[in-house]
Amino acid sequence: MSTATAVNYKEVIERAIKAIHARTFFAEYPEHPKAYGEEAPNKGLEAYNTQLGKQFCGLLQQNPVAWVGEEVSPYTGKALGVTYPTFEVETLIVRAGRAFGQWKKLNADERAEILVNALDRIKLRFFEIAHATQHTTGQSFIMSFQASGPHASDRALEALAMGYEELNRFPSNIVWEKPMGKASVVLQKTFKPVPKGIALCIGCSTFPTWNSVPGLFASLVTGNTVIVKPHPKSVYPIAIVVAEIQAALQAKGIDANVCQLAVDSSSNLITKQLAEHPLVKMIDYTGGSSFGDYIESIPGKVTFTEKAGVNSVILDSVADLKPVVQNLSFAVSLYSGQMCTAPQNFFIPEGGIKQGDTVIPYEEVKKALVDAIAGIANHPQMGPGTLGAIQNPATVKRVESVKDISTVLLESKAVANAEFPEARTCSPIVLEADAHDKGVYENELFGPIVLIIKTKDTNQSIELAKSMAEKHGAITFSAYTTDEQVANTITEELESVFAPVSLNLTGMIWVNQHATFSDFHVTGGNPAGNASFTNPEYVNKRFVWVGHRRIQ
Amino acid sequence: MSTATAVNYKEVIERAIKAIHARTFFAEYPEHPKAYGEEAPNKGLEAYNTQLGKQFCGLLQQNPVAWVGEEVSPYTGKALGVTYPTFEVETLIVRAGRAFGQWKKLNADERAEILVNALDRIKLRFFEIAHATQHTTGQSFIMSFQASGPHASDRALEALAMGYEELNRFPSNIVWEKPMGKASVVLQKTFKPVPKGIALCIGCSTFPTWNSVPGLFASLVTGNTVIVKPHPKSVYPIAIVVAEIQAALQAKGIDANVCQLAVDSSSNLITKQLAEHPLVKMIDYTGGSSFGDYIESIPGKVTFTEKAGVNSVILDSVADLKPVVQNLSFAVSLYSGQMCTAPQNFFIPEGGIKQGDTVIPYEEVKKALVDAIAGIANHPQMGPGTLGAIQNPATVKRVESVKDISTVLLESKAVANAEFPEARTCSPIVLEADAHDKGVYENELFGPIVLIIKTKDTNQSIELAKSMAEKHGAITFSAYTTDEQVANTITEELESVFAPVSLNLTGMIWVNQHATFSDFHVTGGNPAGNASFTNPEYVNKRFVWVGHRRIQ
Repeated sequence: MSTATAVNYKEVIERAIKAIHARTFFAEYPEHPKAYGEEAPNKGLEAYNTQLGKQFCGLLQQNPVAWVGEEVSPYTGKALGVTYPTFEVETLIVRAGRAFGQWKKLNADERAEILVNALDRIKLRFFEIAHATQHTTGQSFIMSFQASGPHASDRALEALAMGYEELNRFPSNIVWEKPMGKASVVLQKTFKPVPKGIALCIGCSTFPTWNSVPGLFASLVTGNTVIVKPHPKSVYPIAIVVAEIQAALQAKGIDANVCQLAVDSSSNLITKQLAEHPLVKMIDYTGGSSFGDYIESIPGKVTFTEKAGVNSVILDSVADLKPVVQNLSFAVSLYSGQMCTAPQNFFIPEGGIKQGDTVIPYEEVKKALVDAIAGIANHPQMGPGTLGAIQNPATVKRVESVKDISTVLLESKAVANAEFPEARTCSPIVLEADAHDKGVYENELFGPIVLIIKTKDTNQSIELAKSMAEKHGAITFSAYTTDEQVANTITEELESVFAPVSLNLTGMIWVNQHATFSDFHVTGGNPAGNASFTNPEYVNKRFVWVGHRRIQ
Repeated sequence: MSTATAVNYKEVIERAIKAIHARTFFAEYPEHPKAYGEEAPNKGLEAYNTQLGKQFCGLLQQNPVAWVGEEVSPYTGKALGVTYPTFEVETLIVRAGRAFGQWKKLNADERAEILVNALDRIKLRFFEIAHATQHTTGQSFIMSFQASGPHASDRALEALAMGYEELNRFPSNIVWEKPMGKASVVLQKTFKPVPKGIALCIGCSTFPTWNSVPGLFASLVTGNTVIVKPHPKSVYPIAIVVAEIQAALQAKGIDANVCQLAVDSSSNLITKQLAEHPLVKMIDYTGGSSFGDYIESIPGKVTFTEKAGVNSVILDSVADLKPVVQNLSFAVSLYSGQMCTAPQNFFIPEGGIKQGDTVIPYEEVKKALVDAIAGIANHPQMGPGTLGAIQNPATVKRVESVKDISTVLLESKAVANAEFPEARTCSPIVLEADAHDKGVYENELFGPIVLIIKTKDTNQSIELAKSMAEKHGAITFSAYTTDEQVANTITEELESVFAPVSLNLTGMIWVNQHATFSDFHVTGGNPAGNASFTNPEYVNKRFVWVGHRRIQ
């Protein structure tokens, strides 16, 4: 392998490891356009337009049995017409097993170099990935770019670097000498991080790359081969990622089947067949809770799940209500609440909340929040750009159907989008409930659905938010209080159910955002999921330390 | 906390962390008697003799509902007459939960200091622990001393140090600043390793401290409270350990119920009640496979198991057969094969094995091995000291009953023990089987049972040993070959089923021995167990990283 590349990957990994341990912003990964070149946006759009209506031919997997594709743009309502090669489950498994024989023999540095090269290649396609993400997920273009492009690649790099660090945790070879009186016993010992085998990575429809690449890169760097099973409605973005990983593998003479794309169709899903296959040892999964619970229950598998959670907000006291409701209304509006990190339940005491020395009555707090949410939805420029489109028609139906379950404070409506008049949209619906109406608010209502829950006081708010997180999971939690004692109580109670607390966020930072190299995404400690991007456990469960010893 | 002690614990931990990463012998933990003082042996014996026939009053757990005890010395056949306090399961759980509230608030240093203090206290009782171990497990006195004393405490320290390192993996507090054009977003972030709650530690009858203290100390240092459920036939050694942990807790003003002993009786076992209790989040287990499989299957628990394995030996070629059979005969004789690391199945090619340029026929190899095993059993001094006594009468029955399953090459017999004429003993039985008689050798036959299996060639030996490890688990694996190519094949094949390979061991080192700070005990990758003393996963599954953030 060339020295030039070798220095490069090593630098990238070492910088990432440093960022992980400092837990600060990875400042040297600039996202401004000049990082991609002036031509990049147009080239990306051109590549996207050229791909529409055609077979996706970038994969190196040979001899497909058929070509399928069912992606439909939430913005235009039209099919993308892209088709992907499909394979028999046994073919995928056999190829993954064969490739494993080669891949497991590479050392951590050899694997890391290839994967950093893959990230370099993926970077060149960020704009195409952005269009592909926008027209499969319904995210706005800018969010599609960030989430599926640099942010996803940062999380991939984080997992890769964490894996690299764990693989190098112990020395490969040592001489062990035990003094035994006059003599001593001398052994040669080797310590090997042995990969587990074939991993399955199951993607979701709303974040096809961001949620999949951490597990994918974590499994790959630790020496496993991976079968990527995307959501059939959201294949294109991750297909590009897999294609570039395969190209990076091939460039180093490695079997491209180390990372395979396993596309299926809604009418013939292969996820369970793959997940239950005895040779599949690990499963990464993002999606709904009931399928996630099934994945976790399959005997003999190591699983890494991100399921649904009920994210809460507690309003106790504020310095100034206005920036608070601005921040919160944006958090619920961003991508129409289709983020697993979006807040759903807002707990507000019936006696209102303190603002400095005055008390803002409950009704006023409620109105301020509702008005701010309506303000974004009705804003001709900000509205469509923030809310994006709705990925799944079922989400629109859910918004429609919840009208009956409680008092409606703000109706959902279509969001006019000048660029895409046919876009599938609906603005957030806001409902009001009493604290005792647990049935109304105790489950995740995926999509733009907000519940304002009137509580006796902040103690009850804490109790309910904690109980929701414990029973149903929470990926984020947000609170506003100017009282240090209350802040401490909230933090203690919520961390005891493994929910991370975001306190008093205003301005250009929202509870939905989890920054790579800093914020753990999902803690793994409550029912929202059993894994975390990226803690050490996320990588060290993917291989086994085996120590050999010999007398030379 | 006093500065003197503070320096001490920090030094101990840092030295241990260094040893873990170097994976070399922890040379500064000398085991020679002067480390314990000249008085120590007599004081230990006196303490043991004083305890016999009385209530064990060293625990700080209040208000027992009864006192029970059923330990019987395998050396004298007499009951020890020691009784231990018992408690209702709910009492144990409530006390563990209450203590958790205090314990989880301590930081890693505060917990580590207390636990290092506990190890210091335990060290003062090594000789009493040795007698207690000898007369519950049947180990020889010297093995009882080493295994339950310094070796167990070393493994406890290893787990403690590994936990300490993981808890300090990320900074507690940082300021995170994200540049946003002209302005920037600034967040205060805190990262907390939040303990999971109540852990259960289930002990075994043959190694009552060695197998329990790693999980116990791993759970404690990471902030969990632990209920220790010993085997009812082997309580005394671990009772001393728990008593000293409780004393160390109390000395720092901490609720002693952070670590409780939960004794039960064979007629009224409480293990399942404890294991299935919803507030028990983690379970450490050592023991038989079928109960271990049950432990692993309880939903919602994080489990750390060491079950049974079928340990194999492959004989391919040797420099000199004599030291090989000496080494192997000692490995099978030590504590009469009642070690989970003892070899059971010896695969020898029908064509014999190479010794330099000559071939030693199969029958000769077999005879050399059988003679060496008989030699130890018949040796008046070496025999009883090596073989010890049999912990469980069922083991004697098993040795009796396997006579029928295959050709007997060496009969088991009683081992004369001048010091303890009533000792329950039986020397190893050696059976011969053909490679195709898988039913004979594919399960662990716990105790002094050795199988010599005639194979077609070394390739078949490898295939069978690998398949045993994959299907039934293996904790150790031993091979003898002078051919580097064969050595590589063996290593590759066995590590692919996560079995550690010991190659060409002769002299004063045996495959049974797993050295702390160096050898992983059980890999966690095959059916012999799902955890490993002590890899990072062993500690980082016991807590959850939670990151909080706030705008100050």
